[in-house]
Amino acid sequence: MVKLENMKNISLSDSVINLDHGDPTAYEEYWRKIGDRCTVTIRGCDLMSYFSDVNNMCWFLEPTLAEAIKELHDAVGNAATEDRYIVVGTGSTQLCQAAVHALSSLAGTQPVSVVAAAPYYSTYVEETTYVRSGMYKWEGDAWGFDKKGPYIELVTSPNNPDGTIRETVVNRPDDDEGKVIHDFAYYWPHYTPITRRQDHDIMLFTFSKITGHAGSRIGWALVKDKEVAKKMVEYITVNSIGVSKESQIRTAKILKVLKETCKSETENFFEYGHEMMKNRWEKLRGVVKESDVFSLPKYPEAYCNFFGKTLGSYPAFAWLGTKEETDLVNELRRRKVMSRAGERCGSDKKHVRVSMLSHEDVFNVFLERLANMKLIKSIDL
Amino acid sequence: MVKLENMKNISLSDSVINLDHGDPTAYEEYWRKIGDRCTVTIRGCDLMSYFSDVNNMCWFLEPTLAEAIKELHDAVGNAATEDRYIVVGTGSTQLCQAAVHALSSLAGTQPVSVVAAAPYYSTYVEETTYVRSGMYKWEGDAWGFDKKGPYIELVTSPNNPDGTIRETVVNRPDDDEGKVIHDFAYYWPHYTPITRRQDHDIMLFTFSKITGHAGSRIGWALVKDKEVAKKMVEYITVNSIGVSKESQIRTAKILKVLKETCKSETENFFEYGHEMMKNRWEKLRGVVKESDVFSLPKYPEAYCNFFGKTLGSYPAFAWLGTKEETDLVNELRRRKVMSRAGERCGSDKKHVRVSMLSHEDVFNVFLERLANMKLIKSIDL
Repeated sequence: MVKLENMKNISLSDSVINLDHGDPTAYEEYWRKIGDRCTVTIRGCDLMSYFSDVNNMCWFLEPTLAEAIKELHDAVGNAATEDRYIVVGTGSTQLCQAAVHALSSLAGTQPVSVVAAAPYYSTYVEETTYVRSGMYKWEGDAWGFDKKGPYIELVTSPNNPDGTIRETVVNRPDDDEGKVIHDFAYYWPHYTPITRRQDHDIMLFTFSKITGHAGSRIGWALVKDKEVAKKMVEYITVNSIGVSKESQIRTAKILKVLKETCKSETENFFEYGHEMMKNRWEKLRGVVKESDVFSLPKYPEAYCNFFGKTLGSYPAFAWLGTKEETDLVNELRRRKVMSRAGERCGSDKKHVRVSMLSHEDVFNVFLERLANMKLIKSIDL
Repeated sequence: MVKLENMKNISLSDSVINLDHGDPTAYEEYWRKIGDRCTVTIRGCDLMSYFSDVNNMCWFLEPTLAEAIKELHDAVGNAATEDRYIVVGTGSTQLCQAAVHALSSLAGTQPVSVVAAAPYYSTYVEETTYVRSGMYKWEGDAWGFDKKGPYIELVTSPNNPDGTIRETVVNRPDDDEGKVIHDFAYYWPHYTPITRRQDHDIMLFTFSKITGHAGSRIGWALVKDKEVAKKMVEYITVNSIGVSKESQIRTAKILKVLKETCKSETENFFEYGHEMMKNRWEKLRGVVKESDVFSLPKYPEAYCNFFGKTLGSYPAFAWLGTKEETDLVNELRRRKVMSRAGERCGSDKKHVRVSMLSHEDVFNVFLERLANMKLIKSIDL
């Protein structure tokens, strides 16, 4: 066993590690320990129809998933679910596009401007440009955006890539043409203090980043306005005729267990996740502190309603900066660490986004390489 | 039990029956009988990563599914899989859009015209118009299409809605700008004789219509050209960051059992499906024959390489016509039968598309109502 682990380390120490994507494999160990309680068994004759609930506007939403979503938000206290439509999607990626589509199709004039405050989630750019829609137009950074006419601001809080708490930055309170999509992928207690129960018009969540089940491709939107929800459902109907039922019933089961563990002293997933993230961030900050080369954002502490105490933030991505005039993504690539270029996020070459949710051994290799980069830099000087 | 069944019939006899969508619940009974062999069990710690195979261009394709797809096509003999890329999608709906996107993005000029010979699958219209892309433009009926420049012809064979065997109708053999997407959703032995092993550039298949597992949202494309496959993968990456893994591994398991039953004398799924469809078509043709009001297409017999004998076609949809000058979709709606309007398929008011894949009791209610419509019509005259 020891031999095997050593071999694994040797092989890892040579290989490229990919921290570009936020593949959340860090939580696998927790779910392994939870064991059979999350196991789903699906027979050959189950889940065959397109339809999940013909009486629901979102006819492809499995009722057990809708229930699990509501119960989890109630238990965590991070979002209001009452008087809202739940729309399920193939990840929040599909839902974000559905929401942009819905708001644009209801706007008075088109194309509708789409903006997000830099640094922003780089995928927003691709999502709003790849089909070259005539309905909306990516207008980039929301800071300084002053174009007239209808617009959509994408607000991610905590923000991807830099982990900051965000609100809208395009301030046009009396402008009926301004709409906001709140992406709350990371508004969960292991990443950030839950300071309020969010109750915005359109709120997006994703299974991937809560529990680490990225392969299931499940996200959901909580939507206040009926017409917007309806248009989102229409989008998903044409885009993929609904959402995998296997993924939905598995998500429902896991979210129910997640909710149950919220009360547990020994198995609380958020406690586990929080400790793991805190530990990783402390290690990373340690390496960065030792270096004269790198920088990381600082996050204020806040009272977390879920944990009932004052806590820091431990984002799913590190927004790593450098004090040198250098192309950081290339520097890291030379050390076989793949990261996302700051430029893709509307920022600069001196920043990269690095996933904090990799497997433990990959994370440790990353720390090692980062520490060594500092040494090499020192020699370079 | 008898009482319960009667009650069910009474309730059905009053209710609206939906044969607009092709919800393929007819096969549920078969899969119930197959029992545990198709059961999948997924633990909480399984399938967590975004990635299925980092060495495959289609990095989100589960290797077991790729294998099952190849084995099934080999066993059935309906399509060539060698020297092709397999791209998995959230149903063939997502794949069709991915293919149109890929071909358009590789075209010399844009927008690329998209056409299909009427009557065509009505969803093609929605798929190619809803995002108002600047890359391609739905140009409607392929018969008589003569616009210059790049174009994509969608060929569905057997055709949805009318069950005919189709080839391209835009005949420009020397035109490099003409591309074809072959939708072979229904090219399986229970619907139509397998007369040749198809080997076109882009071929789409869907799990839904083979086995009836529509809720899984799994489709696949067999693609010859590497660049096209790559662009399709890029589309799906931005559209939904891959495809549900739960659905993929379940599809793999069921396709493997399906392949195994191909050799069975007692459990052959295609034999079962063929008998069921033949039986339904005979009943429907019986009702139509008794009526002076309705018409159905006739299909030639052909030698089926899979069954090793000459057989007829028994499409998944009935393309029901009327000899009266009437709006057939409304006439049926008045009798509480929902169907798809011929006009939506590029045809006329005198035709509708009716699903042949409903539950047995729903199908029988449909036949009853159709038979009664004839009577009512006779009285009307």
